[in-house]
Amino acid sequence: MLETVKTTAQRLAIGPLGQRLAARQRRRTDVPLARWGLEVSPRGALARAGVDLVELVASYGSPLHVVWADALDANAAEALAPLSGAGPACDVFYSYKTNPVPGVLRRLHAAGIGAEVISPYELWLALRLRVPPERIIYNGPAKSFESLCDAVHAGVGLINANSLGDLDLIGRAAERAGRIATVGVRVTLPSMWGGQFGLVAASPAPAEAVRLAQRHAWLHLRGLHVHRGSGLRCRADMEDHVNGVLAFCDRLRTETGWHPEVIDLGGSLTTATVAPIPARQYRLNRALATDLLPPDPADHLSVGQASRLAAALVEAHSFARDLTAPAVVLEPGRALTGDAQLLLTTVHDVKEDGALAHAVLDAGVNIAEPATGEYHQIFSATAPTAPVGRSYRLVGPICTPADVICNNWRLPDLAPGHVLALMDSGAYFVPFSTSFSFPRPAIVLQDGAEVRLLRRAETFDDLVRADLMEGSGPNGPGGLSGFP
Amino acid sequence: MLETVKTTAQRLAIGPLGQRLAARQRRRTDVPLARWGLEVSPRGALARAGVDLVELVASYGSPLHVVWADALDANAAEALAPLSGAGPACDVFYSYKTNPVPGVLRRLHAAGIGAEVISPYELWLALRLRVPPERIIYNGPAKSFESLCDAVHAGVGLINANSLGDLDLIGRAAERAGRIATVGVRVTLPSMWGGQFGLVAASPAPAEAVRLAQRHAWLHLRGLHVHRGSGLRCRADMEDHVNGVLAFCDRLRTETGWHPEVIDLGGSLTTATVAPIPARQYRLNRALATDLLPPDPADHLSVGQASRLAAALVEAHSFARDLTAPAVVLEPGRALTGDAQLLLTTVHDVKEDGALAHAVLDAGVNIAEPATGEYHQIFSATAPTAPVGRSYRLVGPICTPADVICNNWRLPDLAPGHVLALMDSGAYFVPFSTSFSFPRPAIVLQDGAEVRLLRRAETFDDLVRADLMEGSGPNGPGGLSGFP
Repeated sequence: MLETVKTTAQRLAIGPLGQRLAARQRRRTDVPLARWGLEVSPRGALARAGVDLVELVASYGSPLHVVWADALDANAAEALAPLSGAGPACDVFYSYKTNPVPGVLRRLHAAGIGAEVISPYELWLALRLRVPPERIIYNGPAKSFESLCDAVHAGVGLINANSLGDLDLIGRAAERAGRIATVGVRVTLPSMWGGQFGLVAASPAPAEAVRLAQRHAWLHLRGLHVHRGSGLRCRADMEDHVNGVLAFCDRLRTETGWHPEVIDLGGSLTTATVAPIPARQYRLNRALATDLLPPDPADHLSVGQASRLAAALVEAHSFARDLTAPAVVLEPGRALTGDAQLLLTTVHDVKEDGALAHAVLDAGVNIAEPATGEYHQIFSATAPTAPVGRSYRLVGPICTPADVICNNWRLPDLAPGHVLALMDSGAYFVPFSTSFSFPRPAIVLQDGAEVRLLRRAETFDDLVRADLMEGSGPNGPGGLSGFP
Repeated sequence: MLETVKTTAQRLAIGPLGQRLAARQRRRTDVPLARWGLEVSPRGALARAGVDLVELVASYGSPLHVVWADALDANAAEALAPLSGAGPACDVFYSYKTNPVPGVLRRLHAAGIGAEVISPYELWLALRLRVPPERIIYNGPAKSFESLCDAVHAGVGLINANSLGDLDLIGRAAERAGRIATVGVRVTLPSMWGGQFGLVAASPAPAEAVRLAQRHAWLHLRGLHVHRGSGLRCRADMEDHVNGVLAFCDRLRTETGWHPEVIDLGGSLTTATVAPIPARQYRLNRALATDLLPPDPADHLSVGQASRLAAALVEAHSFARDLTAPAVVLEPGRALTGDAQLLLTTVHDVKEDGALAHAVLDAGVNIAEPATGEYHQIFSATAPTAPVGRSYRLVGPICTPADVICNNWRLPDLAPGHVLALMDSGAYFVPFSTSFSFPRPAIVLQDGAEVRLLRRAETFDDLVRADLMEGSGPNGPGGLSGFP
């Protein structure tokens, strides 16, 4: 009885009643293929620069991340273009945590982008990738003493203290390393992420940190660090952010006499085609299968525009006060890599016995977690020009009902083997991925018509590589790999 | 101005006003140390069987998972005890996805527990661990054709079809393997997880699946599979679950004449000391620092009790209908391993400039994701008997404000280096862990007074092991490891 009621309610919701409600909602307009340089191959599949994406899956396996070298280059060039122009501009450091794939990072560094790291591992990786130490910024609430010693010893360009305790730790590391550390202090204004991050602007802590750093024999205070957190999507967001920081600079200068040599404005720049799904739209999509809508491209601030705007505001502020204009730094993540990557996933099964058709994909929340709350354009890679029909609930392979990539997305008729393209997988897909029941996928780089592996897929053996069995060494005799 | 208002509001909330509201809430009663066999070491640290947990961190690093061999053994023995008794009982298969650590799995298998796997990797792991194939159950919505061929070829005890398409795929795999597959059909009643899982009970699909399997030359239909999803915490939950399944069996028998030889009742059994935090309690804890309360231990159904109850209900049902009683199967995960493991984590920094004291830990959502929504007892391992003072927001090391393990937990005064014990980390902590900016921690097994490594901590090199640089092989010359 209960199940009949429930099923009837579901049928009604997506039936006549729901359809009337749903009809009043705006229908999806797909972001055009050209936005990503995508095209349709001669045999009718999704392609780019002549490379058929369905054939890529056949060659490299599924799921598969594809990174576009030209898109990385274009994003980096756009970010750095203002620096080579006449007007004010920001220096740019890539937020490693966003997509910590060495092949991606090297491409950005080769284009002139620095490294923003937040952990001992990321610091190690940047040094391993031969990033010049002065092109590294070390942030984060959990910088270990050992890694701080390494950072100071190497001559890392800027180490931003997250708290008074962190500042003290940096000072002790500098003393241990026998080299003066170049530091900044991270401050949190009410418009920014607070909590564990930064010295609370309204508290005495920022002035105290400035005085402590200025007095410290092993610290050279250069920078003020801030990070908005919520997206700096448009011009007004950026103006608001920078003006808030500059007002705080005035206050701090009044209290301490100090004006930063470097203002590090943090990250939070966005990708034009990705945005959090508004709560109401999410609910309507789930309950009534109304379409998700791509973010409005109007007034989207690119990383180059953000650079010019921020640097101009800082310069005008300094000029008006007869101060030397600080150098300005941005730490974008998704703005550099978000739209330079896509995730190809294959339909494993289509289950149609309930009120909703479920397409079971080989990519779920295990490797595509950001897609659960953000708009990401989805294309059929197998049949990009086929008429869009009914709606599918796109679910992943792991055994939890939370493994839903999209509650409802209208697609051509799906069948097992059909390949989908989940766009803009270049931010937070890789770092948030788990090995939950399934190994993590390969990542390839497409450079013109050439494709090569950046990171091979995890193997079953990889998932037990660190396991030691019955007292032997990892993978040694008697270890798990010693099994026949 | 805005920041003053915000800070004042925060201060008020945890100040006089909030304290009056908070005073009306129940105060936390810690679950006693004895519940886990914990004790206080001679030097005053948390210990078990004479092993000092703070010294473990000194030896093996932090963070650190500690698995207790005797607790695994005790849980397995309790689960299997009914099988060796006189009355009806269930056979027990461990849900691999819950804690897929080979050293843990082998211990359970040695005690007589079978394997429940949901992916090609987990199937491979069970066979690699030499689990007899007839002691393996293969579930899940995304079983690949190749893995199904392997499963049938090996003689896996039961392969449960998730959909009509899955049943067809199993049949084709059996034909390819040249061996008859022993199968079950997964059915979803309204009380259970639906969506991508199982044939909708109210639809014609279950009967169709039965007929299809019975006609199929390569399939031998033995089982009915169900999985509740939401926790089977007490006796009434289990009765409701089993009775619903039995009523469905009657209906399916009326439609098809078929009665299962095996009823696989799935998992969903709980850990006594872990439960989802009720939404109101979560909000009060966040806003007013009221205490989280441990779940009520009264009427908690253990895995052994669940086995006896379920099997008795099935037997009574069959007896009343003059049917041969089916074998009954349970697939517990957290009930076997949840409370046999804890996570030790070290305080990196204590930030006190804001209204709330933040303790930055070296374990966050990257490795302890389940703790964000479930009650997990937290002890000071450094000073377990020190008086509990004020409340700390316990946050992790990764750069997102969502990295909060607990919004407010009262503890003795914390300082960097202080070790905390996060209890009951044996379910879903390991599989949901990521390498977000920090490598994953080691896992040790404590067996009496002996401690040995089960899984070493990830190294920095591990995180780039699969990366190929500049066209060379992974880690080969010219690869990332070729760097000086």
